[in-house]
Amino acid sequence: MQLRIEKSNQLKPLPEDESKLGFGIHFTDHMFLLNYDEGEGWHDARIVPYASIPLDPAAMVLHYGQEVFEGLKAYRTPEGNIQLFRPEENFKRLNLSNERVCIPQIDEQFALEALKELLKIDERWVPHNVGTSLYIRPFIFATDAHVGVRAGAHYLFIIIMSPVGAYYAAGLAPINIYVERKYVRAVKGGTGTAKTGGNYSASLKAQQLANLQDCAQVLWLDGIDKEYIEEVGAMNVFFVIDDKVITPSLEGSILSGITRKSSIALLQSWGYTVEERRLSIKEIIEANRNGTLKEAFGTGTAAVISPMGLLRVDDEDIIINNREIGPISQRLYDELTGIQRGTLQDTYGWITPV
Amino acid sequence: MQLRIEKSNQLKPLPEDESKLGFGIHFTDHMFLLNYDEGEGWHDARIVPYASIPLDPAAMVLHYGQEVFEGLKAYRTPEGNIQLFRPEENFKRLNLSNERVCIPQIDEQFALEALKELLKIDERWVPHNVGTSLYIRPFIFATDAHVGVRAGAHYLFIIIMSPVGAYYAAGLAPINIYVERKYVRAVKGGTGTAKTGGNYSASLKAQQLANLQDCAQVLWLDGIDKEYIEEVGAMNVFFVIDDKVITPSLEGSILSGITRKSSIALLQSWGYTVEERRLSIKEIIEANRNGTLKEAFGTGTAAVISPMGLLRVDDEDIIINNREIGPISQRLYDELTGIQRGTLQDTYGWITPV
Repeated sequence: MQLRIEKSNQLKPLPEDESKLGFGIHFTDHMFLLNYDEGEGWHDARIVPYASIPLDPAAMVLHYGQEVFEGLKAYRTPEGNIQLFRPEENFKRLNLSNERVCIPQIDEQFALEALKELLKIDERWVPHNVGTSLYIRPFIFATDAHVGVRAGAHYLFIIIMSPVGAYYAAGLAPINIYVERKYVRAVKGGTGTAKTGGNYSASLKAQQLANLQDCAQVLWLDGIDKEYIEEVGAMNVFFVIDDKVITPSLEGSILSGITRKSSIALLQSWGYTVEERRLSIKEIIEANRNGTLKEAFGTGTAAVISPMGLLRVDDEDIIINNREIGPISQRLYDELTGIQRGTLQDTYGWITPV
Repeated sequence: MQLRIEKSNQLKPLPEDESKLGFGIHFTDHMFLLNYDEGEGWHDARIVPYASIPLDPAAMVLHYGQEVFEGLKAYRTPEGNIQLFRPEENFKRLNLSNERVCIPQIDEQFALEALKELLKIDERWVPHNVGTSLYIRPFIFATDAHVGVRAGAHYLFIIIMSPVGAYYAAGLAPINIYVERKYVRAVKGGTGTAKTGGNYSASLKAQQLANLQDCAQVLWLDGIDKEYIEEVGAMNVFFVIDDKVITPSLEGSILSGITRKSSIALLQSWGYTVEERRLSIKEIIEANRNGTLKEAFGTGTAAVISPMGLLRVDDEDIIINNREIGPISQRLYDELTGIQRGTLQDTYGWITPV
């Protein structure tokens, strides 16, 4: 496929202070666009100036939520080069999400090549400070101007990019977590394994209630027994009990995180026993009581590693590791961010230079 | 609130043949718009020419599916007047959906008044043929240009309208239904009670598989036991067993349908016993075997009453009422459409003249 490039003739000023980037607020000068029309397939690949998209008010995405997305980051190395962390995994997962909500498959390799072109054009937007990166958001949605439930015949695939700082304002500091008993994120047979809008809008209510309880994120339990741990906020979750690291197994309602997968590989290479299995909240409460609960943390692209300092379960507060960052959380964070920024050697083949 | 009106100076031609309207394809000349901005609330109510909406590619609705909608119809009476069927119920439910996905509440009464104004302006679009109507789609979505999961601070509330014929091309003819055992529409604690996009995108996959099985719609089972009947396609569902009419009770995963509610009221006024309770697919299979399964039908705004002629359960086909329209389905359809079109007396106070 050809990639047409139309450069902006009016570049925006960069954010002045890299320590105040926030997350997902500023956007670069250009974006990648690709159209799909039934009969014609994906066509008209182009990089154009970042601009609003005119959407018919009947556009199906606004009504039936047929939309998927990904999130990954570009990092600037101390030498000034730009690199990506396992981007092929993101485009692979984008196609898994597509499959679940009936969006046509994309050409993963072409998408990655287009992303690299976009990064070269908007190169100056990749920030330099430690802890910063350029967040990349590929997403696809149905554009048909049609009211009536069916899969779309027309789609738009877009990549936009945003220079970001730490996802949580407090950085790596341990956060309070609210264990949610009423609302459910996903259930097997639903869309929990896909990165699709409905999973996120469904999570907002519990998130607001958690915030009222002085908690930063929700720990989701399964939709059937309301007992087994699923995810924390929009991250996968790990617990250290005794000398084992335990994370919920992927049983059809959990997103298969790339940071999760990478963390498991690192932990195993360090000699840790990692168990992927069903894990009940009761087991966590008991491990806390008998003193074997050592650490808990979330993993995700946005925050990388997010240690949990407190779990609010019903009326009980579980304090984890004296609300301090545990050694495994810290080591994973240092190793992952080191590989991502190119200050540590990439022995796994996870880095793609741009 | 003030309502500003800007009329189109270039009216579109009406669809030529009212027998070929289809569903949700044509749109009227105008639309209603209302903005929400945090701090300011809902403001700038206006009726303007139907046109595309410019959306920032980072608009939250395109990523996190924070969107709700409603569907109702305006009918033309034989005298040429225009009337609505229980519209206040739709705006009430829109607010229930809003609540679930953290969208600010709207002023239901103002929305209804604005809709009436819109209908007066686009009056010529309400078709005349029996079985036709003007489908009305109110919807709200988050517009913030922000990448990061949180409830929006900016929303757009829009009403668009589309002249429609029968929702199913075959009209009231009984349809084949595929009983879905793998995919799940919703689970208690999720968003099943709200009209929000994610429920519909989640349904597409099973719908496509049903189509491959020569079935028009999916019968959804509950997400926990995969045994209890929930909805059929995007409709509520009723079964007649012996002389009782049974419909699944609203237990937190089913949409509270307005046609469902109206059907229950009519059936009770006619002396039928209506049971709202959990209903297993096993009970249906047994009722079929012992000859007590008399009728089955879906209820919804789009199709009003949709009789089911065949249920494909695992490897078994259940034929219902010899694949003919049953007497209760027919009577409900005639009564509801008669009240809606003004050919039967409205003794329930369900009609709002425009």
